[in-house]
Amino acid sequence: MRGHDPLDDTEQALLPAPARGLAVALLLIAVAGVSMLLVFGPGAQQPGQAAAPAAHAGVPPAQSILRLFLAVAVIGGLASLGGVLARRAGQPSVVGQMVAGLLLGPSALGSLAPGVSALILPGWVAPQLELLAQAGLAVFMFTVGREFDPAALGRQRVVVGVAALAMTAVPFALGAVAAVPFAGALAGPSASGTAFVLFAGTALSVTAFPVLARILQEAGLTATRLGSLAILCAGLADVLAWCALAAVIALAHAGSPAGVLTSLGLAAALVLAVTLVVRPALAALAARHAARRLPAPAALALVLGLIFALAAATDAIGVHAIFGALLAGVAFPRDAPVLGAVPERLGSLNRAMLLPVFFASIGLRTDVHLAFGHPVVLLGGAVLLVAAVLGKLGAAGVIAWAGGMPGRLALGLGVLMNARGVTEIVVLSTGLGMGLISPGTFTVLVLMALITTMMTAPALRRLGLYAPARAEPRTPQPA
Amino acid sequence: MRGHDPLDDTEQALLPAPARGLAVALLLIAVAGVSMLLVFGPGAQQPGQAAAPAAHAGVPPAQSILRLFLAVAVIGGLASLGGVLARRAGQPSVVGQMVAGLLLGPSALGSLAPGVSALILPGWVAPQLELLAQAGLAVFMFTVGREFDPAALGRQRVVVGVAALAMTAVPFALGAVAAVPFAGALAGPSASGTAFVLFAGTALSVTAFPVLARILQEAGLTATRLGSLAILCAGLADVLAWCALAAVIALAHAGSPAGVLTSLGLAAALVLAVTLVVRPALAALAARHAARRLPAPAALALVLGLIFALAAATDAIGVHAIFGALLAGVAFPRDAPVLGAVPERLGSLNRAMLLPVFFASIGLRTDVHLAFGHPVVLLGGAVLLVAAVLGKLGAAGVIAWAGGMPGRLALGLGVLMNARGVTEIVVLSTGLGMGLISPGTFTVLVLMALITTMMTAPALRRLGLYAPARAEPRTPQPA
Repeated sequence: MRGHDPLDDTEQALLPAPARGLAVALLLIAVAGVSMLLVFGPGAQQPGQAAAPAAHAGVPPAQSILRLFLAVAVIGGLASLGGVLARRAGQPSVVGQMVAGLLLGPSALGSLAPGVSALILPGWVAPQLELLAQAGLAVFMFTVGREFDPAALGRQRVVVGVAALAMTAVPFALGAVAAVPFAGALAGPSASGTAFVLFAGTALSVTAFPVLARILQEAGLTATRLGSLAILCAGLADVLAWCALAAVIALAHAGSPAGVLTSLGLAAALVLAVTLVVRPALAALAARHAARRLPAPAALALVLGLIFALAAATDAIGVHAIFGALLAGVAFPRDAPVLGAVPERLGSLNRAMLLPVFFASIGLRTDVHLAFGHPVVLLGGAVLLVAAVLGKLGAAGVIAWAGGMPGRLALGLGVLMNARGVTEIVVLSTGLGMGLISPGTFTVLVLMALITTMMTAPALRRLGLYAPARAEPRTPQPA
Repeated sequence: MRGHDPLDDTEQALLPAPARGLAVALLLIAVAGVSMLLVFGPGAQQPGQAAAPAAHAGVPPAQSILRLFLAVAVIGGLASLGGVLARRAGQPSVVGQMVAGLLLGPSALGSLAPGVSALILPGWVAPQLELLAQAGLAVFMFTVGREFDPAALGRQRVVVGVAALAMTAVPFALGAVAAVPFAGALAGPSASGTAFVLFAGTALSVTAFPVLARILQEAGLTATRLGSLAILCAGLADVLAWCALAAVIALAHAGSPAGVLTSLGLAAALVLAVTLVVRPALAALAARHAARRLPAPAALALVLGLIFALAAATDAIGVHAIFGALLAGVAFPRDAPVLGAVPERLGSLNRAMLLPVFFASIGLRTDVHLAFGHPVVLLGGAVLLVAAVLGKLGAAGVIAWAGGMPGRLALGLGVLMNARGVTEIVVLSTGLGMGLISPGTFTVLVLMALITTMMTAPALRRLGLYAPARAEPRTPQPA
């Protein structure tokens, strides 16, 4: 796992000015589109809709691609703006992007200005956005998988492995226990009590590896012992959390113990095949053809083909499609000149265009009214929030302190591990999609993810571990 | 207008081997996807579908993005294969791509193997494909617009203008007259008799500028007098045909003469604004910022933003969205380093991925059973085919011969102008979408487009004007 944030490196690569320029450009387009619609809009004649086309039913109207594009432009513009504002406020930009997505949904725009919401995001656009969001999520998981680097563990393997396991197991157990009394009120329509409780444990044990890495980088801590330990722990905890999620999904999906074992066995076989066979084979192939270069469309087709083929495979196995996309990232050798800059460019376009659509699709399914209208849901959410912070921050801090780390640094590690970010959002949307949690529960847990992520940077500053403006990083004493 | 084919330059830029490699890569992916579906396919458990997600209805199932991707991969793979096979057979590759699209529809796959068709292209995929096809069409029109170069006309302006006008007017008149007796049988549900007859005239007066340019290039004729004259005539005829189509659409759409005049007036104002204000302004802006470069996502957002904003504008005005996309191509300065290679890369990806989807969406709406089951439709199609060839090939040949061109070359020019290619397909799909022609008429006219395009290369060879393998081009005597 590298100290490198797949979410934020576009903006990192740019000077502040071009980043603002990007935001302004996208916003301008969005504003132009909105004003265009407002002027010519729903009242104007719509040739495509008037005509009854053709051999197959359900063809969208002629300007539907324009409306879809408008929606994507508005979403991308607001996300860029949110990212810029979050950075100004000393938060990782992903916080701003997530908030922008939430504001577009029924929580804010949908209830405050339903007319504008219907204009920008008409009902029929939602399924189209959902498809784009799924594509964005798949590509995001691919970029996460590309960060996988077992060699980084090195000699610390055992220590870090035990620490990461403990830092995952404690919040998992705490979350599962805290969820038991609320199983009736918070579980989704297709969840057994067991499946819900296990899912809650999984959701609370998540650490946002990308956000953590980004914060370490901004604080100038990457090269310190705290930094490298946090990166390793978070990376391993990430892997453990994904395994736990896969197990919960298999459980929820298969029903019978035999089915669960089959699913997990097949998934494990696929993971072994990819890491032990496909990854080395592709690396050898890439090394042999180092001087050649595929044309960009072919390279893109290959990358997308592997992502979606593996996603289809894990989906068919009974763990979620996101794991296949993650595995595709693991499978591709990091250094493959034959692909040119296609994987990087794909990731960077995805961050600017499709990942905001994923956040917006989360926002469309998040409704604070569902949470604040139901005291039990709100109470359950608050209890889970406390359990999440105690379990992750507390456990990680205590384990690091017991391992000999000075108190302030141990607390800092706990704070870092407590950031949940996009990883949590992915886990939650999977749970909602599988019917493991209700929309209300989804909402409170999304807020939990947002709160734990937003805590991180200010808490690090309070601890004196955040060196703003990339000042000389403090060198912690060796433990 | 340059002697450069926006359809084919990917393959042109590549050696034959990588082009085959691209086809093979895409096909492999498609085959992998299909086999994956066949193994795990419709019988397997589908977690995403089982669950009932969320706050908004109509969310596609979790693996729908996989199915959509599979459909796009199959379509792209078959189109690449079709293109390669067409080139082998001495045809422009676009012919193979069009045939591949037709084979995927109800004409072949849908009636011969409905099971396979339902597996690859299930019903709910059609609207999604239609959206992608519209996006591909918009980007294609953008690349067509980028070829616009009024400076190329030079001193020949008047001669070429008169010739092109005549070469468009004669087939237009012939087509309109030939269509009169068939108006009852061939018109679409929302067409008045006048609108249908005018549309038929427009459809027959089309010349495929891209295909013609490509054939001239392959035949090594670009630098000859025949070549440059054909390029200029075809380019101008293209502009005239688009204007005629805009007028027919305005007529069909507005109904009243005042409405038609308003639409056309607004459209003319927009064209003038783009060519006289926006294009020079953007060129000046690009020149001033020649040393700077937008990040790729921002450049892409700008290009797509302008395409879709202008498409929305022309759609709102009452001429079709495709004209806005065309105008966006005209508006962007050809030489804009600030955009990097984004417009070219967009065009090349579009040719490999989305334009085949457009052909497939044409194929899905083309059903030879509709034509061959109805003798009147078939007869009408045959009459229009004869009128198309006579009007375009005949008129162009006679006009060129009367202008002093030697007979063989004049006939060659007629043959070249008779190729209809993608331009015709775009016109026809617009007519079908507006309800100006019936699905049966659409089918026979698609076949007419295919036949006139396929005639071109063999006819040129027969005339001794086609120098295969890029041999030294024959130099025709000056007229």
